[in-house]
Amino acid sequence: MIQETLKTFFPAMVERRRYLHRYPELSFQEQKTSAYVADELRKLGLDIVTGVGGNGVIGTIKGQLPGKTVALRADMDALPIQDEKACEYASQVPGVMHACGHDGHTSVLLAVAEYFSVRKETLKGEIRLLFQPAEEVCPGGALSMIKDGALNGVDVIYGVHLWTPIPVGTTASRPGAFMASTDEFFIELTGRGGHGGMPHTAVDSVVAGAALVLQLQSVVSRSVNPLDPAVLTVGSIRGGTAQNVIADTCRLAGTVRCFHEETRKTIRERIEQLAHGTAQAYGAGAFIDYMAGYPSLVNHREEFERFQHIAATEVGLTVEHSPQIMPAEDFAYYLQQVPGCFMLVGAGNPEKNAVYPHHHPKFDFDEEAMLHAASLLIAMTQAFQSDRQ
Amino acid sequence: MIQETLKTFFPAMVERRRYLHRYPELSFQEQKTSAYVADELRKLGLDIVTGVGGNGVIGTIKGQLPGKTVALRADMDALPIQDEKACEYASQVPGVMHACGHDGHTSVLLAVAEYFSVRKETLKGEIRLLFQPAEEVCPGGALSMIKDGALNGVDVIYGVHLWTPIPVGTTASRPGAFMASTDEFFIELTGRGGHGGMPHTAVDSVVAGAALVLQLQSVVSRSVNPLDPAVLTVGSIRGGTAQNVIADTCRLAGTVRCFHEETRKTIRERIEQLAHGTAQAYGAGAFIDYMAGYPSLVNHREEFERFQHIAATEVGLTVEHSPQIMPAEDFAYYLQQVPGCFMLVGAGNPEKNAVYPHHHPKFDFDEEAMLHAASLLIAMTQAFQSDRQ
Amino acid sequence: MIQETLKTFFPAMVERRRYLHRYPELSFQEQKTSAYVADELRKLGLDIVTGVGGNGVIGTIKGQLPGKTVALRADMDALPIQDEKACEYASQVPGVMHACGHDGHTSVLLAVAEYFSVRKETLKGEIRLLFQPAEEVCPGGALSMIKDGALNGVDVIYGVHLWTPIPVGTTASRPGAFMASTDEFFIELTGRGGHGGMPHTAVDSVVAGAALVLQLQSVVSRSVNPLDPAVLTVGSIRGGTAQNVIADTCRLAGTVRCFHEETRKTIRERIEQLAHGTAQAYGAGAFIDYMAGYPSLVNHREEFERFQHIAATEVGLTVEHSPQIMPAEDFAYYLQQVPGCFMLVGAGNPEKNAVYPHHHPKFDFDEEAMLHAASLLIAMTQAFQSDRQ
Amino acid sequence: MIQETLKTFFPAMVERRRYLHRYPELSFQEQKTSAYVADELRKLGLDIVTGVGGNGVIGTIKGQLPGKTVALRADMDALPIQDEKACEYASQVPGVMHACGHDGHTSVLLAVAEYFSVRKETLKGEIRLLFQPAEEVCPGGALSMIKDGALNGVDVIYGVHLWTPIPVGTTASRPGAFMASTDEFFIELTGRGGHGGMPHTAVDSVVAGAALVLQLQSVVSRSVNPLDPAVLTVGSIRGGTAQNVIADTCRLAGTVRCFHEETRKTIRERIEQLAHGTAQAYGAGAFIDYMAGYPSLVNHREEFERFQHIAATEVGLTVEHSPQIMPAEDFAYYLQQVPGCFMLVGAGNPEKNAVYPHHHPKFDFDEEAMLHAASLLIAMTQAFQSDRQ
Repeated sequence: MIQETLKTFFPAMVERRRYLHRYPELSFQEQKTSAYVADELRKLGLDIVTGVGGNGVIGTIKGQLPGKTVALRADMDALPIQDEKACEYASQVPGVMHACGHDGHTSVLLAVAEYFSVRKETLKGEIRLLFQPAEEVCPGGALSMIKDGALNGVDVIYGVHLWTPIPVGTTASRPGAFMASTDEFFIELTGRGGHGGMPHTAVDSVVAGAALVLQLQSVVSRSVNPLDPAVLTVGSIRGGTAQNVIADTCRLAGTVRCFHEETRKTIRERIEQLAHGTAQAYGAGAFIDYMAGYPSLVNHREEFERFQHIAATEVGLTVEHSPQIMPAEDFAYYLQQVPGCFMLVGAGNPEKNAVYPHHHPKFDFDEEAMLHAASLLIAMTQAFQSDRQ
Repeated sequence: MIQETLKTFFPAMVERRRYLHRYPELSFQEQKTSAYVADELRKLGLDIVTGVGGNGVIGTIKGQLPGKTVALRADMDALPIQDEKACEYASQVPGVMHACGHDGHTSVLLAVAEYFSVRKETLKGEIRLLFQPAEEVCPGGALSMIKDGALNGVDVIYGVHLWTPIPVGTTASRPGAFMASTDEFFIELTGRGGHGGMPHTAVDSVVAGAALVLQLQSVVSRSVNPLDPAVLTVGSIRGGTAQNVIADTCRLAGTVRCFHEETRKTIRERIEQLAHGTAQAYGAGAFIDYMAGYPSLVNHREEFERFQHIAATEVGLTVEHSPQIMPAEDFAYYLQQVPGCFMLVGAGNPEKNAVYPHHHPKFDFDEEAMLHAASLLIAMTQAFQSDRQ
Repeated sequence: MIQETLKTFFPAMVERRRYLHRYPELSFQEQKTSAYVADELRKLGLDIVTGVGGNGVIGTIKGQLPGKTVALRADMDALPIQDEKACEYASQVPGVMHACGHDGHTSVLLAVAEYFSVRKETLKGEIRLLFQPAEEVCPGGALSMIKDGALNGVDVIYGVHLWTPIPVGTTASRPGAFMASTDEFFIELTGRGGHGGMPHTAVDSVVAGAALVLQLQSVVSRSVNPLDPAVLTVGSIRGGTAQNVIADTCRLAGTVRCFHEETRKTIRERIEQLAHGTAQAYGAGAFIDYMAGYPSLVNHREEFERFQHIAATEVGLTVEHSPQIMPAEDFAYYLQQVPGCFMLVGAGNPEKNAVYPHHHPKFDFDEEAMLHAASLLIAMTQAFQSDRQ
Repeated sequence: MIQETLKTFFPAMVERRRYLHRYPELSFQEQKTSAYVADELRKLGLDIVTGVGGNGVIGTIKGQLPGKTVALRADMDALPIQDEKACEYASQVPGVMHACGHDGHTSVLLAVAEYFSVRKETLKGEIRLLFQPAEEVCPGGALSMIKDGALNGVDVIYGVHLWTPIPVGTTASRPGAFMASTDEFFIELTGRGGHGGMPHTAVDSVVAGAALVLQLQSVVSRSVNPLDPAVLTVGSIRGGTAQNVIADTCRLAGTVRCFHEETRKTIRERIEQLAHGTAQAYGAGAFIDYMAGYPSLVNHREEFERFQHIAATEVGLTVEHSPQIMPAEDFAYYLQQVPGCFMLVGAGNPEKNAVYPHHHPKFDFDEEAMLHAASLLIAMTQAFQSDRQ
């Protein structure tokens, strides 16, 4: 069994993860992490390419048997959060913290690299290890790595996320649309200011803005298939400055999350239609900036089914059919190009204080989960290669 | 004094008024009333023209002294109301009643005719007596009488309304915009029907209609000068037929009242803009039928000032500076063509049971008010003629 | 294999189904259908009870081997739809039609009865056949059959629905919440009527009603978990009668569909809160009638997993993991009491003109599907009994 | 004629006004202005009281003939506006300016003092000169002067406002409600914050705030007599800080202007009812701070009629019947205690660059208007005294 072998890797996995945890780097600034990864890969004798799509690193392991190319991805960036943990491996960088487990992902993929690097004789095909920067901040690192050729010749891609909301020992995924797309929008309604006592000389942008907020509620309630989850939140509204002056401008800012491109398109169109229609209704102007974020992450059914089977039989994990979840992932871009599956690996454990949600200042995970994650990636890779011979 | 002379006319005035009261006729159906008036004018030896603008009658009295032409107007039509009075002169026509005092107006103008018909030697200029049909129902009889030439050569016009909300012995009017314009509108929003559980396949006209009703509130609250009275009422909304079917059509019907043409134009434009904008916002269609009723009645300042002076000094009435009032009057059309003044003549009197509002099934007025009204029309005419010599 | 055996039953299944199709009966009026079913069961030598929960019939088959009690259910009622099919077995009853396949369900369960009635020696436990009336109309027949003891001693229950949206040869179901709950609501907002030109003397119920419709959009958009499907539709709004009269009453009627009782409770509470709050805001009164319909149908995971396995291996059908679907089913009440699974059996087939949606006047299904449905019920029963020995 | 006499005062009036214009002081900070006024009054030999209601000064002139007590009022404070005029008497105080003409009012009342101070022998009764601080900023100086006894024994009060919107040589006022009451309100809706993707865990205060803004439009459109002018403006709305966070708080601030206490009360009640009802509808909390400003200024009919007559016959001004106007005046408080009239004195003159509206950085008035204002106050005083002998 893979896990038995990996157990001997565990001390090194922990060491690497804790090192990375101590020295987190923000998205697009992962120079040291990138260099560290490259060094580790070099020690394993791998071919590496650095500076891929920014701070990305690609390591390649070519098996001596014929086969397909499997890509495995880890993300490397941290978050602008002050670490509040008391442990010895807490972040040394003020205001920056690996509060999402990317340190673990990187360590997991390094262990996978180590595992395969000494098994080239029996390895079929090629394994491409993608150490990706900037997952946390749009436009993310996946797109730029793809542009730099990271997926050229790739037949399938797998990725994992250590996940504290489910207990260590379980794993979860879902066929089809799994994680949400996340977009942002900004709307400025421009009326005409005036004296508070002379509304007829003005176009009251506060009234138009209020009407728009209320009408935007109908996007989810009326224009989206009830069986297709979607959220539209107007997070802020701001109009006018004084009690007695009619506001010339009212600004709305919000987000949209959903799971299908068609729905995403519908929502965007409805927002634009409602904003322009409402502005017209009040004789105001509307400026709309719709900023598309990551698309929905859509697992391929065949690879999901492989996961369901392999995770249980080869890795010995409890496999859950996950509901759709609202967070976004730029792994979605890879899955738009090649088949694959993104998998959550249970990392919650009250006994190890791994109870905080992702992005929490006290976030931590059960490091045992790294063994599961690495085993899963290895087993999926092997299963795919066997299947395709 | 005029009133002294007129007192001798009073029994005949009462008799004529009560005859008309017994035999009321609906708007556009005033054949008998019209014939009665023509007969009475013929008895006085007047030149008359019948069939003016429908059932209108014009009587002309030419003075032997040079002068201007003064038009005086009475309206003749009754209302589709069942008379609930117990008196001997109650309506003999089921469901039809002079519940607005037009019987009195007609009687008053016949008395004026009689007064001047025997004073041609000392009469300056010409007096034109307009007995108008169809004041109660839009488009009214004033416009059609004007089209038939009723105002040709007229220099000034006066009209009165017996008015029970103010006590007998008083009279009231106002310079400028005095009585409201009254328009009606009908809006049909067309969405796309659908199953109640599949809103994304439909365009919900009920939601669009609700949004429009709410947004129409901003017409008066935001687009009209607060110092310029206006009302917009959506009297009815109707959308959909079943709980579980998304409505394809939602219909609104309402009224608009205001006092200035500019405001009226603004309100109409805002209704259209809001309806079209809201329809666009929801991807629905909007059909709007805006039916203009009578315009605002605008008294000419000079004639109002004449009224203020003459009513007090020559007729001995208590003169009130009236606030603007919401009812509409097609006398407004005459005042769009020639100078003039419309005057309310107090006709309320608790001692004579004249306490009900206009259009009430028990409406009645103090018949003494007819003396005041006739005196006022005569005095205004004489004052105008003297002024212009 | 079961299907081989059943093939010999097929001519009789078709004959019975077509007989029932010719003579459909509306919900709560299934006297003839009920009598027909009882007769058929009697012919098979079964113990039967009639008049269960109205027109329900229960047939019991006791095996000679020890075992559990399995309930199988078929619904018998038809719809108030005019049959527009041209075939020889089209409905003979004007305006009534089996447009949902309940004729097939009944025929299927009769075949299952026949199958087991001759296998009592090898049959474990007991099979209880529930021929249920009134599935189409709330409150349905399931509740009343349960009240009459239909589930007493039952260990598991299975039911099928012939389903034309999926092709014959497939079957689909889903663990957990599968079919929606469906409720109806009626809201009356009571203001105070008044003249269209004097809004200050009135409480405009049309404005309050419009505000409520708009605000109800926030129930789904804001108060429901986006990952938990729900629909709230205001199907109709009705307020006021005349353009120029402020409406004293505005009525809303609508439906609610969702999949979890907690969500259903939240939606109901939000509707009530919004109605009362909006009424208070406008100084109006609110009367709310919330009529709970069928609850959400929730399959038990273990029985769903049995279905997934058995349908594929024992019946040879293509098994689909169904998304949640919006129609409601009173089979839901059985599943609130005992474990079980409700299964859709593919019955669509363009070659046999089985292309119309359920409740369509030309609805028909591929009768081969009845073989699949009967086989599935038999196989599930046998698998359950084997499992529990 | 008074004006002839006053012409000899004109150079001094201009000098004093320009001095005050150069050294404006903000509301509640009128120490120097107050001292200047006291000095001038002392020079005239008047009894004075200083420190009345803050920086107020009262000068008293007792006639040698018996009579009533007439109060005349001038306000002394300036505005926080940077003077942009180029003239030699422009403000010497950065950011402070007499942009409303109070410098003129003060100078006018000093001239009136001078006029009467040398006519005690023929003066009937007593003249009380109220030099009031802080008219521009609520709660104003009128209330505190009244509390300090300024109106004790007063029989009538008159006040003027130099008014550039009407031309020099005219004067305007109105019986009854003339100038608006002005109130401010602040509403905080408190929901419950949450993640933008999980609305069901939050109470979205932005949606509640938007609903409230829209519903507040119905206060003027539905709850106020259309013939009774009123404005309700929501000048600002502020809710939430981030696109992706549901706002826990939304704040509205606005103003209310109207002309009758009953209407003011209705509007306040409707705001509170709508805020509480809407909050309840959304499960949010509402905090409302309604800050009553100056009441409506209501002229007494008898004193208005005196004005109409005297201004024309004794002062030779063109008298206009003013419409109601939206600005507020704390002179309103005096008129709640004693009879009186507030009068606008035309001060606009394009030839003298007196064309800017009040509170404009280039505001100026035709100084000739000071002669009219002083004459009017003197004439009104004399007429009142004559009338009451």
